[in-house]
Amino acid sequence: MSTSNAPFERGEYARRIAKTRAAMAAQGLDAVFVTDPSNQAWLTGYDGWSFYVHQGVLLTMEGEPVWWGRHMDMMGGRRTCWMAHENIVGYGDHYVQSTEIHPMQDLAALLTARGLERARIGVEMENYYYSAKAHAVLSAEMPHATLCDATALVNWQRLIKSDAELGFIRKAARISEKVIETAIDRAEVGVRKNDLVADIMHAGLTGVEDDWGDYPAIVPLTPSGLDATAAHLTWDGTPMREGEATFFELSGCYRRYHAPLCRTVFLGTPSDDMRRAEAAQIEGIAAGLDAARAGNRTCDIANAFMGVLAKYRIERTGRMGYATGLSYPPDWGERTASIRSEDTTVLEPGMVFHFMPALWMESWGLETTETLLITPEGPAEPVCNIERKLFVKP
Amino acid sequence: MSTSNAPFERGEYARRIAKTRAAMAAQGLDAVFVTDPSNQAWLTGYDGWSFYVHQGVLLTMEGEPVWWGRHMDMMGGRRTCWMAHENIVGYGDHYVQSTEIHPMQDLAALLTARGLERARIGVEMENYYYSAKAHAVLSAEMPHATLCDATALVNWQRLIKSDAELGFIRKAARISEKVIETAIDRAEVGVRKNDLVADIMHAGLTGVEDDWGDYPAIVPLTPSGLDATAAHLTWDGTPMREGEATFFELSGCYRRYHAPLCRTVFLGTPSDDMRRAEAAQIEGIAAGLDAARAGNRTCDIANAFMGVLAKYRIERTGRMGYATGLSYPPDWGERTASIRSEDTTVLEPGMVFHFMPALWMESWGLETTETLLITPEGPAEPVCNIERKLFVKP
Repeated sequence: MSTSNAPFERGEYARRIAKTRAAMAAQGLDAVFVTDPSNQAWLTGYDGWSFYVHQGVLLTMEGEPVWWGRHMDMMGGRRTCWMAHENIVGYGDHYVQSTEIHPMQDLAALLTARGLERARIGVEMENYYYSAKAHAVLSAEMPHATLCDATALVNWQRLIKSDAELGFIRKAARISEKVIETAIDRAEVGVRKNDLVADIMHAGLTGVEDDWGDYPAIVPLTPSGLDATAAHLTWDGTPMREGEATFFELSGCYRRYHAPLCRTVFLGTPSDDMRRAEAAQIEGIAAGLDAARAGNRTCDIANAFMGVLAKYRIERTGRMGYATGLSYPPDWGERTASIRSEDTTVLEPGMVFHFMPALWMESWGLETTETLLITPEGPAEPVCNIERKLFVKP
Repeated sequence: MSTSNAPFERGEYARRIAKTRAAMAAQGLDAVFVTDPSNQAWLTGYDGWSFYVHQGVLLTMEGEPVWWGRHMDMMGGRRTCWMAHENIVGYGDHYVQSTEIHPMQDLAALLTARGLERARIGVEMENYYYSAKAHAVLSAEMPHATLCDATALVNWQRLIKSDAELGFIRKAARISEKVIETAIDRAEVGVRKNDLVADIMHAGLTGVEDDWGDYPAIVPLTPSGLDATAAHLTWDGTPMREGEATFFELSGCYRRYHAPLCRTVFLGTPSDDMRRAEAAQIEGIAAGLDAARAGNRTCDIANAFMGVLAKYRIERTGRMGYATGLSYPPDWGERTASIRSEDTTVLEPGMVFHFMPALWMESWGLETTETLLITPEGPAEPVCNIERKLFVKP
């Protein structure tokens, strides 16, 4: 028997595995080996900061999934996965970061032992945790198997959230509201950015009542002024200055589930340009939420927003959102459907997106965003409740 | 001209590039394309949380390196890299997480434009941020080039730290002392682990005086009791209990440089077994530090520690440390030399290792570690100054 602390009931995992197997069958796969830590957690409950070494979950068409990783992380597997201990297996520490041998040699032996020597096996070719070298070694070790690209096969099964998952996302949303409120409250001229980030992280980790805070998959992004023209700068020890906008790209996290939320604070008096962009952004978000209805497509959200921008004659290109939920660093997006004009994913109830039509202009940046839930009827529901506006402080 | 905020002087980057080019010449490479964010930062100063999309640094045998990434991150490149703006280039947002096109197609065009169509180009086959798919696409797009495995080529050049880098590591060490002291002070029966982690992160990010805290490449690992038999569990909202050991695997971070440090706290009265393990661990660390002399090898450190463990008849296998310094998630190790019996890297002054001979036993775990600096003469210098013992609290 397992001493599992997996966060969901067995039935939830059974549902997930059934969905994944249907997708595997559609692609004619005998097995998938998933390395994305989010996919591992989604299928098995595995949770640990061990994804910096090779590990993954093997799922075939029958039986429990197998968690495979470094021997010392088997104990973590036993503490967090729902499967029987014989389905949590480890490789020796001498494989770790060796230049002589590779963990994929051990995996090949496991696949062979499980009768998969000549199988069609899906691997996640486009994932942070499946390196070019890993693929080369696994291919060489399994000459009779067919390794197929199954990138995002599991991720797509995660797109529609169960009620249990939505419960976690709503808890994350309460934490997101708390961290954004902390950022808005604490931002003032002279406050060092790193001190502000310290307060933001503290607020997120303490969580909301019994709902303890987990680490978000992305650290707080909090650039000011010219730095806010760049999308992904973190922070330094510079005090906040008058006359600058600072955007806060944050998320609460509850047991690895996210509800990203961004707001922008201006210290002083914003320019007319920025006020106009604010008005456009807020009107555009309302239009996007209204377009985010079951049966419509992801591009309809993007086009609704862009229609408003065009009216204001503001130029913007690029993606403006993505599916979100369960995640590990370096990304809290699910890497499936995007909110952009080229994406035609049909919206269904239970899908959750971070709708982030940020405006990065020549000398400032403005981020106001919502995590939205597609509902059975009517417009999407923002899961957080923080006023949508540019927060102006003296 | 650049408006660079790169953390080091130009001469430091020139030194790094010269070392890297010598290693490239030794491998007969015309160019390297490095995707490891630490290598990118080390060569160019680039610093941003954008490594969740494809990006990298191209270095040839002449001229400035080129930072290449997503178009929206060019602004971040201009804000953080030391090179001229024409050497900071971006690809369109339609490449991001597309299933139709891949950013490596844009990179291939850049390589071709720079005359590298038939070149020998080193790529980091074993890196989180160079996926199997990226390699497949780049290979297909560059049929006349020779892509060679240059994994860790740049990492190895980072092994001996400059004085400027040691200055950063010493600042990180002051922050490490502060976070460990915070953990020891705040740990007590009934405190929720996530609240304790919130205080630890707050202490680390506020930093020490003017030395502001950056985000460590690994989140605090703080397991208690049975969870501490696993190496890489994070935290939850469970209150700390009497009779349990909790290890704190932490690091301060100053401008991406780390000085990892672990200590263990026991609430109550530890068993005789644990006390004996404590004695062995502390005696073993002293033996390891004494063996960590310029001219000796990494395995000498491991063997010195293992010799003490044998005397105490305690069994342990596996790696017990690694080179550390500049890093990004998911790992603060440099993935070059390891402290283990199979590793024969010769120690030189300026090398920095996290010496972590943790003991993960059947029902508890004990971590006492040091970040050590190899000095010109005599034993290694621990860069942090926190008493080495099991901290026992009522």
